[in-house]
Amino acid sequence: MPLAPLTYESHRLVILDQTRLPQEAAQIELHDLGAVVEAIRCLRVRGAPLIGTAAAFGVCVALRGCGSLAEARARAPSAFAALRGSRPTAVNLFWALERMERALAAAPESGWFATVEGAALALQREVEAQDAALIEQGLALLAPGARVITHCNTGPLATGALGTALGVLIAGHRRLGGLHVYADETRPRWQGALLTTWELANHGVPHTLIADGAAAALMRRGGIHSVWVGADRIAANGDSANKIGTYGLALAARAHGIPFYVAAPTSTVDLSLPDGAGIPIEERDPGEVAAPRGVPMAPPGTAVWNPAFDVTPAPLISAIVTEIGVHRPVQPGGPYDLRRDLQGPPS
Amino acid sequence: MPLAPLTYESHRLVILDQTRLPQEAAQIELHDLGAVVEAIRCLRVRGAPLIGTAAAFGVCVALRGCGSLAEARARAPSAFAALRGSRPTAVNLFWALERMERALAAAPESGWFATVEGAALALQREVEAQDAALIEQGLALLAPGARVITHCNTGPLATGALGTALGVLIAGHRRLGGLHVYADETRPRWQGALLTTWELANHGVPHTLIADGAAAALMRRGGIHSVWVGADRIAANGDSANKIGTYGLALAARAHGIPFYVAAPTSTVDLSLPDGAGIPIEERDPGEVAAPRGVPMAPPGTAVWNPAFDVTPAPLISAIVTEIGVHRPVQPGGPYDLRRDLQGPPS
Repeated sequence: MPLAPLTYESHRLVILDQTRLPQEAAQIELHDLGAVVEAIRCLRVRGAPLIGTAAAFGVCVALRGCGSLAEARARAPSAFAALRGSRPTAVNLFWALERMERALAAAPESGWFATVEGAALALQREVEAQDAALIEQGLALLAPGARVITHCNTGPLATGALGTALGVLIAGHRRLGGLHVYADETRPRWQGALLTTWELANHGVPHTLIADGAAAALMRRGGIHSVWVGADRIAANGDSANKIGTYGLALAARAHGIPFYVAAPTSTVDLSLPDGAGIPIEERDPGEVAAPRGVPMAPPGTAVWNPAFDVTPAPLISAIVTEIGVHRPVQPGGPYDLRRDLQGPPS
Repeated sequence: MPLAPLTYESHRLVILDQTRLPQEAAQIELHDLGAVVEAIRCLRVRGAPLIGTAAAFGVCVALRGCGSLAEARARAPSAFAALRGSRPTAVNLFWALERMERALAAAPESGWFATVEGAALALQREVEAQDAALIEQGLALLAPGARVITHCNTGPLATGALGTALGVLIAGHRRLGGLHVYADETRPRWQGALLTTWELANHGVPHTLIADGAAAALMRRGGIHSVWVGADRIAANGDSANKIGTYGLALAARAHGIPFYVAAPTSTVDLSLPDGAGIPIEERDPGEVAAPRGVPMAPPGTAVWNPAFDVTPAPLISAIVTEIGVHRPVQPGGPYDLRRDLQGPPS
């Protein structure tokens, strides 16, 4: 069994450094707040749900040296601010930090740190339960023998549990059989090539790696049943931010009449945003494109636009799968009403 | 001025090794047929028009040691076969070799080699004239200040002359002003990152490099006026084979109502094919995707599908620009009649 992407034991936060996979399964301990922020920013720990979990335990790491609750509360604002500033797009990060803020606010004088740790551990268990439930929901959309395309990495590495979109596909292989997964390499960071193929191989799922630009041609060749991706933030109307390249994949799926599914826990849904226009899109280092892994692939000084995410409009999404259900647009091809779906009708 | 991508002087064929650009402008002489075939296959010389020119001079290199026309004609079939087997998709290769076969068939006993060389040199001059005329045609579709996207490399490096699609953009910068070119990096071989940005910089054209997956998001952000690509083979109905990723780009352009232009000389049109279904698509080494530049980006043994080209259906192409005109579909959004456009009405 591969090493867990994140463990918290004896007050120590240890992650698998995902930037070194699949060549090397290297665990590193994140000793202080700065190391946690760096690990999130540099994608050593990544995947929207796992970023949330890492941030929650990051609060524990940041506060564990405090001698009192008062000291912890004094130190907390700068720690929360540093973690919030690590990456802007995945809302799970902010969701997790709000949980931790509430825990700290409610913590008793005596045993405050156990309360804070308990909140992070509870969040981690909740992510595990969400993944398991989401996978059950998603399996209803898969048939035996399905040939599917996925983008980026949404497996166990992205959540620290069973995974979201890729978790559905891994479970589908085991439970339904006959699946074949085409993994987009996912430039500029190659999460599909480096991580998704590795996870598929670990779970014995037949798979093929393709360049991102080959996905549309693959759909045109025929035989693709569905496309599965995760999300970093989903607005109330279903507009979904996900790894750059997702939007083009959704357009190609629509052109071929292939169902396009977004699978993510409800913690990825940001009901404060009516639509995707308000989702902040992280722009990353030009070097990720111009000099991947330090190998120059463009003349020095070449200008680069390197958004880490794009937004797929809700009408291109056939269904959004969360742990509580398979959500459909209000009208086919229109927006979703995730506020209704997640909160129920107003009383 | 950068070195010419191909020169033929004093019976010697010298190319710029495009696999070493932009770091190094290394010229290499192709001493024999095997070296010519290898250079085409490994993309040292590339771009559909330049592949044709290289193959024509490859015939000269293959036959220059023959002591008589009879010996040349005896050696020719295996040389033509080797060159035809180098790369399957760009029809310019086959077009050029047919020209050379006819020249050899018509060559006089005395001075046969000068005839063969003359045919190759004439072909080279024809490509130059085609580029110049094509650019004039294409400029009619560009406006000052246009912001455009291009894919792969279709500049001087791809033709040995002024270029096709990128040639239009370079000329547009000089003649119209205010252009900004977004260059897709063009995985798996990075021709956009390595070659197109280099050519744009050489000609002072403002440009930005993006990952292939970012093109759709760029269109959605707004302000993109048109998309310009070349072609490796165009069927009679306008279906166009071009670098993998072109089809997805065309789908995204259509979704955003952005004109999508294919610019290629008439030598790229294969009237023997009614539509794109008959275009042979080269599949290349899995290592181009799984271990680019020798750096492993996927677990060893990962299965890869690596088509070098895809086919964009004619209805997605707003216009096809050749040296003889701007061709439009018979009905908007339908197929082209390139047989009529290129050959005129049957008498």
